[in-house]
Amino acid sequence: MEKVKIGVIGLGRLGYKHAENLAFKIPNAELTAVCAMEEDRLEQVKKDWGVPYTYKNFEDMIKNSELDAVLIASPSGLHTDQISKALAAGLHVFSEKPLGTTVEECREAEKAVEKYNDKVFMLGFMRRYDASYKYAKEKIDSGEIGVPILFRAYSQDPERFIEGAIAYAGHSGGQFIDMSVHDIDLARWYLGAEPEEVYAIGGCYAHPEFAQYKDGDNVSALMKFKNGAMAFLFAGRTAPHGYNVETEIIGTKGILRIGSVPQKNMVEILDNSGVRKECSQDFLERFEESYLNEVNEFINCIIEKRKPGVTVYDGTKTTEIAYKCKEAFESGKLTKI
Amino acid sequence: MEKVKIGVIGLGRLGYKHAENLAFKIPNAELTAVCAMEEDRLEQVKKDWGVPYTYKNFEDMIKNSELDAVLIASPSGLHTDQISKALAAGLHVFSEKPLGTTVEECREAEKAVEKYNDKVFMLGFMRRYDASYKYAKEKIDSGEIGVPILFRAYSQDPERFIEGAIAYAGHSGGQFIDMSVHDIDLARWYLGAEPEEVYAIGGCYAHPEFAQYKDGDNVSALMKFKNGAMAFLFAGRTAPHGYNVETEIIGTKGILRIGSVPQKNMVEILDNSGVRKECSQDFLERFEESYLNEVNEFINCIIEKRKPGVTVYDGTKTTEIAYKCKEAFESGKLTKI
Amino acid sequence: MEKVKIGVIGLGRLGYKHAENLAFKIPNAELTAVCAMEEDRLEQVKKDWGVPYTYKNFEDMIKNSELDAVLIASPSGLHTDQISKALAAGLHVFSEKPLGTTVEECREAEKAVEKYNDKVFMLGFMRRYDASYKYAKEKIDSGEIGVPILFRAYSQDPERFIEGAIAYAGHSGGQFIDMSVHDIDLARWYLGAEPEEVYAIGGCYAHPEFAQYKDGDNVSALMKFKNGAMAFLFAGRTAPHGYNVETEIIGTKGILRIGSVPQKNMVEILDNSGVRKECSQDFLERFEESYLNEVNEFINCIIEKRKPGVTVYDGTKTTEIAYKCKEAFESGKLTKI
Amino acid sequence: MEKVKIGVIGLGRLGYKHAENLAFKIPNAELTAVCAMEEDRLEQVKKDWGVPYTYKNFEDMIKNSELDAVLIASPSGLHTDQISKALAAGLHVFSEKPLGTTVEECREAEKAVEKYNDKVFMLGFMRRYDASYKYAKEKIDSGEIGVPILFRAYSQDPERFIEGAIAYAGHSGGQFIDMSVHDIDLARWYLGAEPEEVYAIGGCYAHPEFAQYKDGDNVSALMKFKNGAMAFLFAGRTAPHGYNVETEIIGTKGILRIGSVPQKNMVEILDNSGVRKECSQDFLERFEESYLNEVNEFINCIIEKRKPGVTVYDGTKTTEIAYKCKEAFESGKLTKI
Repeated sequence: MEKVKIGVIGLGRLGYKHAENLAFKIPNAELTAVCAMEEDRLEQVKKDWGVPYTYKNFEDMIKNSELDAVLIASPSGLHTDQISKALAAGLHVFSEKPLGTTVEECREAEKAVEKYNDKVFMLGFMRRYDASYKYAKEKIDSGEIGVPILFRAYSQDPERFIEGAIAYAGHSGGQFIDMSVHDIDLARWYLGAEPEEVYAIGGCYAHPEFAQYKDGDNVSALMKFKNGAMAFLFAGRTAPHGYNVETEIIGTKGILRIGSVPQKNMVEILDNSGVRKECSQDFLERFEESYLNEVNEFINCIIEKRKPGVTVYDGTKTTEIAYKCKEAFESGKLTKI
Repeated sequence: MEKVKIGVIGLGRLGYKHAENLAFKIPNAELTAVCAMEEDRLEQVKKDWGVPYTYKNFEDMIKNSELDAVLIASPSGLHTDQISKALAAGLHVFSEKPLGTTVEECREAEKAVEKYNDKVFMLGFMRRYDASYKYAKEKIDSGEIGVPILFRAYSQDPERFIEGAIAYAGHSGGQFIDMSVHDIDLARWYLGAEPEEVYAIGGCYAHPEFAQYKDGDNVSALMKFKNGAMAFLFAGRTAPHGYNVETEIIGTKGILRIGSVPQKNMVEILDNSGVRKECSQDFLERFEESYLNEVNEFINCIIEKRKPGVTVYDGTKTTEIAYKCKEAFESGKLTKI
Repeated sequence: MEKVKIGVIGLGRLGYKHAENLAFKIPNAELTAVCAMEEDRLEQVKKDWGVPYTYKNFEDMIKNSELDAVLIASPSGLHTDQISKALAAGLHVFSEKPLGTTVEECREAEKAVEKYNDKVFMLGFMRRYDASYKYAKEKIDSGEIGVPILFRAYSQDPERFIEGAIAYAGHSGGQFIDMSVHDIDLARWYLGAEPEEVYAIGGCYAHPEFAQYKDGDNVSALMKFKNGAMAFLFAGRTAPHGYNVETEIIGTKGILRIGSVPQKNMVEILDNSGVRKECSQDFLERFEESYLNEVNEFINCIIEKRKPGVTVYDGTKTTEIAYKCKEAFESGKLTKI
Repeated sequence: MEKVKIGVIGLGRLGYKHAENLAFKIPNAELTAVCAMEEDRLEQVKKDWGVPYTYKNFEDMIKNSELDAVLIASPSGLHTDQISKALAAGLHVFSEKPLGTTVEECREAEKAVEKYNDKVFMLGFMRRYDASYKYAKEKIDSGEIGVPILFRAYSQDPERFIEGAIAYAGHSGGQFIDMSVHDIDLARWYLGAEPEEVYAIGGCYAHPEFAQYKDGDNVSALMKFKNGAMAFLFAGRTAPHGYNVETEIIGTKGILRIGSVPQKNMVEILDNSGVRKECSQDFLERFEESYLNEVNEFINCIIEKRKPGVTVYDGTKTTEIAYKCKEAFESGKLTKI
């Protein structure tokens, strides 16, 4: 079994994690190259992990003929361009979400993926590779909960990271695009259908800074799906307790709740504030294993010449829906999708 | 301390419970009269509980000069008429929800209550008298959760009662009016504001019988409140696990969840289905204490010449809002309130 | 249906609660007399509740020919004497636990109860009348958990009441007698057997004051029952979170846990300490309903000429076992029961 | 950074898992050799994982001069002999628990470890490397729970594996040695002290087959520690719900509970059996990550020339204590340790 040689673009928090996983925890992969702007990080990775090649320029990296694949964890605005270029260079591509920052960009990516159809392309909807989310999916597919009625999803970042969120507000695309895309992906995956209409509201309850970007610090949307199912999404940046990613699927025969308490671990504490569980604080803590699993799946798809469950079209669809949520939120109108 | 002599109209499940509470568990009340259509129930109550007077006709009962008050637990369509007549007869009035079956009826009731302003009038929004709901209210009022962002409420009847629900579907007014009124009352109470816009969807996911009444077996609504807060309501008739009344208030500094597991009692069972809690099955089981507390409060208001926290206007408002939800649901349009 | 006229001796916290329940919440009882040392409390009860007779002397009260029954909530050392005297005076008797402060006293009480066998005698093991404990008992009796293997019980008072506990330490008889008697009663009730051997340890982990009474602030015991079942008891006075009464019965087919989180109500709080439930703080809060239920049962037994499930022998047995635990604790030896 | 070349002896369930982890998930290790009796497993490992060397004889394997270390996952009775031989052959050694099957064997191992003090020796108490157990340890060490009072541990295997347990009963050494050793290790680790006295009971509640080995299907022990702390251990083979490893540490200022619900994942299911969580079914499922972490630590200790937290003396001590529990159980007497 030969190892897949992969290059990573982007050494931000998530890119760094991916690179580290590829270097040490993904048996069939070899972290062969890394590309980033930060010279010191490149140096560190080269020195500590023994990565053979480092680049400051993406185009240079993909010319490296040793590479089989790239993992894209660069800023969102660069995704589609890099996807197209890497595919054209004959590489398999894993891209972090979002697929693109506009629906048009997503369509470009679709074309590239279709053109280089012999390559594996995968998008980073890591929740699908989380043990609990997978388990719920199996239960739904096996009919255990009957007909899905309501999909409810919360994606809440903790208040303690609010400064970063404010600083990034102008680039995030707003909460529906930045945060709810994962929930939109799950809704489509679990419900097996597409939404047709959305109503979205919210506001700045604690931090007026988001208003200038036509965003809120907490927003919500209610969507009607084509199969009649309902989806309620809530995205917030002021969770007092931690990183709260909570999903519920109410069916006619059973109800599933995933992560309704975002507990950090299996320790329960009884003290003068009562009986409590401490909570996960960020996405890397909550989804550590999922990030590993998804890239493992990408690598295995390459080796086994399979295509992953998450497709480029999932990326376009969720982007499209997220934009419709944003539009609904900004206009205050009931919006067709 | 003299006891308040009270007559009860209606010996359905809830009326019977109220009568029993008044007969035995409300220290300052005396169950003096009962009015119902069912002769055998009247006999039983007379014989077993020693109720002095029984009637088959409401007008006859309120002529009884020994009475200080009446408790109305008759079919919804009779409420406003009986409220007006009882007040006119010089009696204090406790009426089960809904105040009326139309907003017009509610306005009639308002007029009667205003006219007989020296009488105590109270509406049966029992959840406000539940220990957990009261506790949450205190925490909200004391500022513990900061600014309220989202109010989320589920009111789900168990599937095992679906036959009764179908039989009653033509008279229920639909789920928003039948079930969500309690949640609407809580939303207004907790948020301290009125809604201004609503979007409502849903359908018949398991029981097509509701469609003929322009209702669904599961419905939901997303509302924008005048103070910017959001409210998401879900009402269903197919809960697999029990009588699920669950409420969440997400604030900028804290989040409160009431009854997110509708546990029957404090027993946890570990068996071959995992670790589980059995659930309450109906409103009498879940809110037994609240039904007692609310009537206790009514009686004490009479004795102490106070007015209760729940007013006739709460009845009109919730009815009005529930009708707007129904209208939004039927029209599929975003609806101003 | 005639009401049972009852007199209460003792207006401490629990006696006052019993008196109040009898005055207002127990339909078939009439609080006819109260006896206490505190003149102001007697006055208050007379005035506010309209109790016809008040006494400062127990012997005087039981001479009152209107009385049908007495409820004894006096200091533990007086119980057996008052039980005997009240029975001899032709009264039904409800006595708070313990039956007596020594096994000899208990035997005296047994004799009196046997002699006046036409009278109802009941002992205040209120947990048996708690909804959750009753539910567990039904599950055990119906065979749902198979053969009982291990009974585990925690009885923990909160640290915040430690000063009172220290002040009372010389009179409490030690934790096994003061606190574990309820657990011992439950163990016998659930396991349907008697213990035959006990090992007991513990110490003063936070409050050395208990050592002078040969007691600890936290103690535990492991007992072997005659049917082979095991029982582990833990009693403490330093619980950080509240009044923790927790019971588990591990069977070959199922496990039941009662109150493993001593949650105050159904509110869950998500804040910067995580996701938490606040806890009950004392026995009156946790067992409010049980105290009402047990006296209701006593009154109904009188009216229906039945005998209650808790007998005088349960009182003797638990006292005997508690003393053996104390003996084992003090001697450090394995002790036969 | 050079990789540690390691050989694994034993390809049973746990040995296979360790080998797989070493082959794929432990970055600084290289699975260089495997030794097992089962020829087909050796073939599979060689073929699928590309392991260079396979052996049917331990002595042969340790002669392989490429090896830096061995991981011993052979039957318990072979551990000490293999530890000594491997150390003598100049290899670092990781051994699965138990250190030895008798205290004498453990002392032999101690001698070997002392003699080859420049080698890393580590024992497989994997719970210490579980995220939740580590978190609890940190809280205890930081003083968050004050003075430890009671350590309570349950180790329960599910009833569904009872046939295997019965088949293995003659070799297991009994439940204290087979199962409670992990709890004994945790008790010593958390309490920072040694036990001085133990009382142990139990029996065959469902499966009389264990009696012939002087064992029970469920057993318990209460121990007094030298620092005054108490420890209650319960070990069982008939858990109805799954693999239940639950630990509680009650302190004067806080209480920690680890794994009190052995939940499989973060999915909560609401269906006609109530609200439930499905449970882990075996040690590999519950401690998957810990098995990885502990061997990672072993490898890193070799590379960084450190000694791990778990020492050979921990192995001897826990074995000694487990034997005392067994002795107490068999004799029915209070036993000094």
